Order: sequence, then C-alpha cells, then structure tokens
Amino acid sequence: MMLWLDGRLVDRAEARIDPADRGFTLGDGLFETIRAEAGHAAYLDRHLKRLKEGAQMLGIPLGWPDAAIEAAIAALLAAEGLRDAALRLTLTRGPGPRGIVPPAEPQPTLMITAGPLPPPAGPARLVIATITRRNEMSPLARLKTLNYLDNILARREAAERGADDAILLNTVGRVAEATAANLFVLRDGVWVTPPIEDGALPGIARGLLLEQGAVERSLEPADLATAEAAFLSNSLGLRPVAEIDGRPLPTSPNPLPPEGRRGLSRSLTAP
Amino acid sequence: MMLWLDGRLVDRAEARIDPADRGFTLGDGLFETIRAEAGHAAYLDRHLKRLKEGAQMLGIPLGWPDAAIEAAIAALLAAEGLRDAALRLTLTRGPGPRGIVPPAEPQPTLMITAGPLPPPAGPARLVIATITRRNEMSPLARLKTLNYLDNILARREAAERGADDAILLNTVGRVAEATAANLFVLRDGVWVTPPIEDGALPGIARGLLLEQGAVERSLEPADLATAEAAFLSNSLGLRPVAEIDGRPLPTSPNPLPPEGRRGLSRSLTAP
Repeated sequence: MMLWLDGRLVDRAEARIDPADRGFTLGDGLFETIRAEAGHAAYLDRHLKRLKEGAQMLGIPLGWPDAAIEAAIAALLAAEGLRDAALRLTLTRGPGPRGIVPPAEPQPTLMITAGPLPPPAGPARLVIATITRRNEMSPLARLKTLNYLDNILARREAAERGADDAILLNTVGRVAEATAANLFVLRDGVWVTPPIEDGALPGIARGLLLEQGAVERSLEPADLATAEAAFLSNSLGLRPVAEIDGRPLPTSPNPLPPEGRRGLSRSLTAP
Repeated sequence: MMLWLDGRLVDRAEARIDPADRGFTLGDGLFETIRAEAGHAAYLDRHLKRLKEGAQMLGIPLGWPDAAIEAAIAALLAAEGLRDAALRLTLTRGPGPRGIVPPAEPQPTLMITAGPLPPPAGPARLVIATITRRNEMSPLARLKTLNYLDNILARREAAERGADDAILLNTVGRVAEATAANLFVLRDGVWVTPPIEDGALPGIARGLLLEQGAVERSLEPADLATAEAAFLSNSLGLRPVAEIDGRPLPTSPNPLPPEGRRGLSRSLTAP
C-alpha cells in the first residue's frame, strides 16, 4: 500500500508524519474526500477550489499547483492498481513549535491516500444528535477541516442508539447536516437542503444537486418529522434515508439526481 | 531532542506518527500542557484526571496507568536534561481506516514532549475576536481536544490587529476564554472568570484560582470594558492584561494568586 506524501510515493508502513506536525498536534489543516472513477478524480477542480479557499482562510500556503496534484493522484492510482477509488487529500500547516502561534514560514504537509470505494450501503437510519451542536457561527463550518470531533461524537451517539448516522443541529436548533454528508429532504415535491448559513458544509455533491434543481432552505427538526423522503450526499455517493428518529421514510424512487451524472448517481455508498 | 512515544524514548527526528493516525486525519484526540518544575510535573494528578475524563467522553481507552506516565515524564526530562519545562501529553485514538467511524478496538497513541519553558512575556494586549465564536453547546468546549482551529483563527485575528491574544465569545455573545488561557477580570474587587457553561475550558490553573477565592460569573463584553484589571491563566503561568480592545488596564499588583503557589505565581509566560 502506497501513499503520496510531499512529492513522493512512499509505502504506507514507512511513511512518516512528523510528531510536531500541526495537523497532528492541533488539527490545523483541511482535507478533501474525492471519488475516483476510471482512473480520474471526479470534480477535482471543485475539490481543489474548496481546498484552496480553505487554505486561504486558514493562511496555509498550498505550494502544489493543480496539475501537480492531478499527476500525483494519477501516479498513486496507478501504483495501487486502482481505477475506482476513494481518494483523500490532507493538507496541514506542517510542523511547528509548541503552542498555537503558527510558524512565520510554514512548511505545509500534503498527503494523498487512495483505497477501494466502500461497498454500497443500504438505506440509512438516522437520529438527531443530542450530544452536540454544529457551530454555524464559526467560519470553520464552511470548511472541510481536520476538526472532526463534534461529528465523531454524533456518530458515536448514533451507533449507541442503533442508528447508522446522526443529523447535527446548529446552535439555534436548525438542521445542519449529517456527520459526513449533507442532508436532502423532500418537501411538497421539492428537494430541500439546509443553507450554508445554518452550518451545512458546502459539499461538492451538494453543489451539483443544487445545480440540478434542489433548493436551499432552513429546516427545523419538525420539518424532518413531516418529510416525504430524504437522502444523504457526499462525494462518494448518495444514500437514501430509511428513517429519522424512528419514523420510516419511503426510500425509492429518489427523484434526484437524474440518471447518469458522473460521480453522483452510480452507487450508493456509506458516507 | 527526544520524545516519549507509546512506551519508548525516541529521537524526535526519527519519531514517526502513522499517516492513518486519527489524531492527524480527524483531530481525534486530546492533549495536556503541563509545567514541570525541579524535575516534577506540577499538578500531574489534576492533568491526568482531566485527560481521563476527556478520554472517557470520547471513548478513547488510555492504557497507561498514572505511574507509568509519571515515570515516562521523569525519563524524558532526564534524557533532555530539563528540570523546568513545558510538557505536552498528546493522546489520540490511534490509526484507523478511511472515514469517521472509529475502529472497534482502537490502538491509541500517547506522546509526551518536553521543551524549555517559554520566556516571560509582558502584559498582553487583547482584542475580542470577531472571526469566530466558541461553541459552548458542544461538550468539546469542556475538553482539551486537538480541535484547535477556532482558537488558531482567533489568534491569527489578534496578530492581524496588532494584539497578543484574542478573547473568544460564545454563541450567545458571552465571554468564554482566550485562545490558550482562561481569562480573569477584577470587578468590584473580586476576581471573576466565565463559568464552564459559557464555554470556558476547565483549566487546571483556573481551578486552583477558584479554590483561592476567584469566582465564576458570566461576563458580557461590556463587563470587560469596565473591568478594573485582568489576567490570563494557563498551566504554564499567569500573564497580566495590559489592554482589551484598546482600553488600558492597570497591570499591577495582581491580588491573585497569593505568592508562592507552586506552578502558578512564579513566572509570567506567554500562553
């Protein structure tokens, strides 16, 4: 098993993250999960745009041009003998001294890993997380950062309650998203997803679905109780929702997305 | 330079964090910053209690008994030739597969680093952060986790505004803490610090100061504008506050803490 780390393909067992890397010590970084199909990263331009916007916001210089990252992905997929894959790009601020003050001239870490796509998952049973809330008042809610503990807590709660995933509410009680996917619900025949301002991560799949006719609208938990159907979206695929807090939902057909959109409709995978 | 990693003293330049470590990929872990004096970690029992409470909340098994951690610290300080030091314990859930679902049987990573105490810092100029808010509705606000990006953002804002540190407000606009320290303000002759419910990290130094007569009370930004004095506290020391949002404050004398309390009063260091 190989990975790409700062310009080199290296064996995973030998690849070394510096113990002083601020990704490790402070969660000081970003990542992207990308679906590869037939040897190509789907919507790579959109993923890299989001990554660069996040890096700009955090002040992490990304020294690699898009073409170099695309070549790195191709080399990694070839080395691993993968054509369809789940890719992950991780960008951190790199090593730093003790404390939270970033080094004046950071040497960022960029890592790319690839693995087989997760197997298709059945319709998801969701619960609304009670253990934590998503902080829509932080700009981090709009970035895909390494600070994933709220989502991990919510996913642990879901497992403890016998569910597959959890829906996070924001600090004022509105629906934000699931722990690793955006949420779409069918209301009066329209697919609706929470707006960014409510704490939804601007998912790449979410953006594609909005271009295909879904709309942004704030959702209260009560709106979920009367939803006609629901699904989860992330860059690895879509997944129908079978129930929310114990209330069953019809799981087929999903009017969205239209058949044949690359990277969205071909498979249902576990987020 | 040595560090202690999962049971061994190793050279920092050779120490290897697994690229799949969830501390690195998801910020899935905790840390403690501890002041060592005369070769001993100050208030180690309190730090380990907080670490274990956090690990319990996150479901990360800490396989090392207190005595083993104490011995590891002693061995590291000896190897580094340090008697007074800034120690850091980092505990992560260890390596995991892609995705946020934790492995059923995690192999946590425990790392201990030591370095010289930071030099004394002068009185701090603070600003109230506008870029983000601390999420007091998440249980993570009560844990010292690896998810430090909100604090990093606020510290970057402080630097951009020519200040030394930033005060974070919570989601309802109350004062929570500084980016790496608790905040105490003098009001009507009483030292006041925000309660845990408002998003203050339960700092070890904070706890000691509360035992010495400081009190918990919610603070609005307007309360800071009329404060008689203020200081920052963390486990490395206390630091007077020279100004908040441009308003000067008297920086001496600080009625708290009483002279001679180990680990608190001996030095003023940059948090």
